[in-house]
Amino acid sequence: MVAAILIDDPADPRIAAYCDIRERDLVGRQGQFIAEGEVVLAMLVRSTRHRAASLLIDAKRIESLAPLLEQLPPDVPVYAATQAVISAVAGFPLHRGILAHGIAAPALEVERLLEDAPADAVIVALSAIANHDNMGGIFRNAAAFGATGVVLDADCCDPLYRKAIRVSVGTSLTLPFARLARGDDMPALLVAAGFRVLALSPSGVTDLHEVPRGGRVALVLGAEGPGLAQSLMERAENVRIRMAAGVDSLNVATTSGIVLHHLTAGRG
Amino acid sequence: MVAAILIDDPADPRIAAYCDIRERDLVGRQGQFIAEGEVVLAMLVRSTRHRAASLLIDAKRIESLAPLLEQLPPDVPVYAATQAVISAVAGFPLHRGILAHGIAAPALEVERLLEDAPADAVIVALSAIANHDNMGGIFRNAAAFGATGVVLDADCCDPLYRKAIRVSVGTSLTLPFARLARGDDMPALLVAAGFRVLALSPSGVTDLHEVPRGGRVALVLGAEGPGLAQSLMERAENVRIRMAAGVDSLNVATTSGIVLHHLTAGRG
Repeated sequence: MVAAILIDDPADPRIAAYCDIRERDLVGRQGQFIAEGEVVLAMLVRSTRHRAASLLIDAKRIESLAPLLEQLPPDVPVYAATQAVISAVAGFPLHRGILAHGIAAPALEVERLLEDAPADAVIVALSAIANHDNMGGIFRNAAAFGATGVVLDADCCDPLYRKAIRVSVGTSLTLPFARLARGDDMPALLVAAGFRVLALSPSGVTDLHEVPRGGRVALVLGAEGPGLAQSLMERAENVRIRMAAGVDSLNVATTSGIVLHHLTAGRG
Repeated sequence: MVAAILIDDPADPRIAAYCDIRERDLVGRQGQFIAEGEVVLAMLVRSTRHRAASLLIDAKRIESLAPLLEQLPPDVPVYAATQAVISAVAGFPLHRGILAHGIAAPALEVERLLEDAPADAVIVALSAIANHDNMGGIFRNAAAFGATGVVLDADCCDPLYRKAIRVSVGTSLTLPFARLARGDDMPALLVAAGFRVLALSPSGVTDLHEVPRGGRVALVLGAEGPGLAQSLMERAENVRIRMAAGVDSLNVATTSGIVLHHLTAGRG
């Protein structure tokens, strides 16, 4: 039995975290996040890093969600409201009717993430990935292929942005990630931690299917238009995915899936 | 020198095809389409299947686009208007300022597409892909890895829908595709044309990296939720992409990229 707290006033201060979701997405939430949907909520419940501060759920769905809600710590309030109240709070029609307000874990240190990685770890290292769909897609693939974690440079967008969480199918809540400070030297940090550094680029030298597997490997990906900085390419193995004539790029999330599949194929 | 026709009235009947773009996206355009952006326009110019009926372009961009516009047949009118007029016609702010109204080629016959394929052709066959982002992403990957074409069942969405064209980076305008009628037997048609049929599913038996390359191969993909029908799976080689524990699916466009990369790796 879930003890939901009924809310009938969109201005109720207990649900202030859910107000004007889209406008506040744009501002950013500094260590907090909004997650939506049942699959993502299940990942939040499972996350050992981040935690739910509260939930706001369509009252009609409380009963069917009970098995999931019962796994939350008992001090997490579950607010129930009508679809109309939820949409009024959120500021747009929210048909899924499942929202969570989350508190992000303190940021991981990059060095800690890298040093604690297993001997056959695959790390995804991202440079200037600013699109939330791509960020979410990369996390989904990193989780699917058992990557140890994701390293972000200072120009990457937030994996805990609402849309990135949704596209990641909640994996950005469970897969460890760490962010470099501006000016940090990504390849140097990776090499220092014993990682082979693969930089993916249409101008790469080695065809992906010839890249050997094994050991600690970091896969570095940049944004589709500008690609990776020359200074980074120079200090990495330059790998390409061979494409048909007339086509010169793949979506970066798709690229991550192709490379991760290659690097982990044949693992038990 | 491109002879653009200046339009200053959003109600000008010569640009009626561009009115209320989003509303008409929903209704469907029966053999016509709207394409947007410079990259996509370049693909339309290059397409040997579909053709431009007219263009509507931000007057400020006509000069920089001249090299591209000059490749159009001389009877295709190029309408020029201000950003404000274009947005008023389209019904939403259209910052790219490049629109094309296209006429789709007559539908290809599935049998023709399959029979004319080369001896080492890879065909992508889609069942119930209803999401335009996924459709566009699959076309982009099919083109990138040199697939011969795409076969769609009756439940697939239109690859010439505006958003699908955009996500495909225009490749849905150049890569041949053919649509099955409702009730057509996809695996039977593929087998009759000499194709090995691979059906991708999390419950597949063979790991992708063990699937041999070569010969005519068709890769069958279904929607992420329901997956492929049992009746189809029973008549195909069931292939899976091995994933980490706790993750049970990949995005279907990403899946297409991973499988196409495997099937075409090592080609010249």
